[in-house]
Amino acid sequence: MKLEWELLGTKDGPSFRIFKARYDIIRNPRNGTELDAVVLESNDAVNVVAITTDQKVLCIRQYRFGIRKNTVEVPGGFVDKGEYHKDAAMRELREETGYAASNWQYLGFVYGNPAFMDNKIHHWLATDAKQTTEVELDDGEAIEILELSFDELKTYAKEGAFSHPHAVSALVRVFNLWDVEL
Amino acid sequence: MKLEWELLGTKDGPSFRIFKARYDIIRNPRNGTELDAVVLESNDAVNVVAITTDQKVLCIRQYRFGIRKNTVEVPGGFVDKGEYHKDAAMRELREETGYAASNWQYLGFVYGNPAFMDNKIHHWLATDAKQTTEVELDDGEAIEILELSFDELKTYAKEGAFSHPHAVSALVRVFNLWDVEL
Repeated sequence: MKLEWELLGTKDGPSFRIFKARYDIIRNPRNGTELDAVVLESNDAVNVVAITTDQKVLCIRQYRFGIRKNTVEVPGGFVDKGEYHKDAAMRELREETGYAASNWQYLGFVYGNPAFMDNKIHHWLATDAKQTTEVELDDGEAIEILELSFDELKTYAKEGAFSHPHAVSALVRVFNLWDVEL
Repeated sequence: MKLEWELLGTKDGPSFRIFKARYDIIRNPRNGTELDAVVLESNDAVNVVAITTDQKVLCIRQYRFGIRKNTVEVPGGFVDKGEYHKDAAMRELREETGYAASNWQYLGFVYGNPAFMDNKIHHWLATDAKQTTEVELDDGEAIEILELSFDELKTYAKEGAFSHPHAVSALVRVFNLWDVEL
């Protein structure tokens, strides 16, 4: 079964601070229907599962503008233009938490939201994180740092604390956070 | 530490087919900096981990407009206005796969993307799914159905097939898909 939609053209859409809209005019292979699909073009991003030398997982609590509430996540942020995503992971960990690590392992990626975004979120694991510098936050950030034991991490998960899909996707590469009975 | 940003005002932004932009003018509690945060207002959505009576997990392959590629996901879609999200889960499972189930369990939710979206993605588990009707696709859909054993699901995950963060978030409530050595 052919699933790929034919691209008939593109149009520019409005720009925002963190993404730019584009319209793809596309045709459904199943029935020929045409659709204007909005795509938000955005830089790739990274996030980091950082485990300290005393076996704690570094999480951050921050206010999220979309939901007007705080969430608990793992450190991360956008990859700068031309930056390798591992360097962005090391930089974001340092800026948001003041921690550095020498042992890094790539965990894979998810798309930001493949339905209407074009970017990837790369997940990195750092297993020997130590505090080495002060936190350096952007103007758009206000962050509280949490050091959670593996047990606390699972308790947080079961209580619904991890509500950012990209943080969930990173953490579950390393930890089995939920155990639903089938 | 106070993390909540003060809301100073809101402005309307452009509308798109699946969301409407809004700007929140907000003030950073840490340093008083003001920021125009874009928020995309969107309906909540649902997705479903559906397990058939012969212990297969129903996945779907579809073309995703943001990345111009196919992804493997679980069935799901937007909740209609006024619809209870469990009803949306049952409806989307039926429309996208032709399957129905009588045993439903709520698995929790993630936000679509709390950084700049206001909606939730509710995860549901259906454990006795059987094909009962024909597939009924929207004009904007072209879908291939996959029935994966639990072993195949883990193989797919390790090969990077699950790249939609909302599908990952649903599946990991039920299955431990990755095992990274610490």
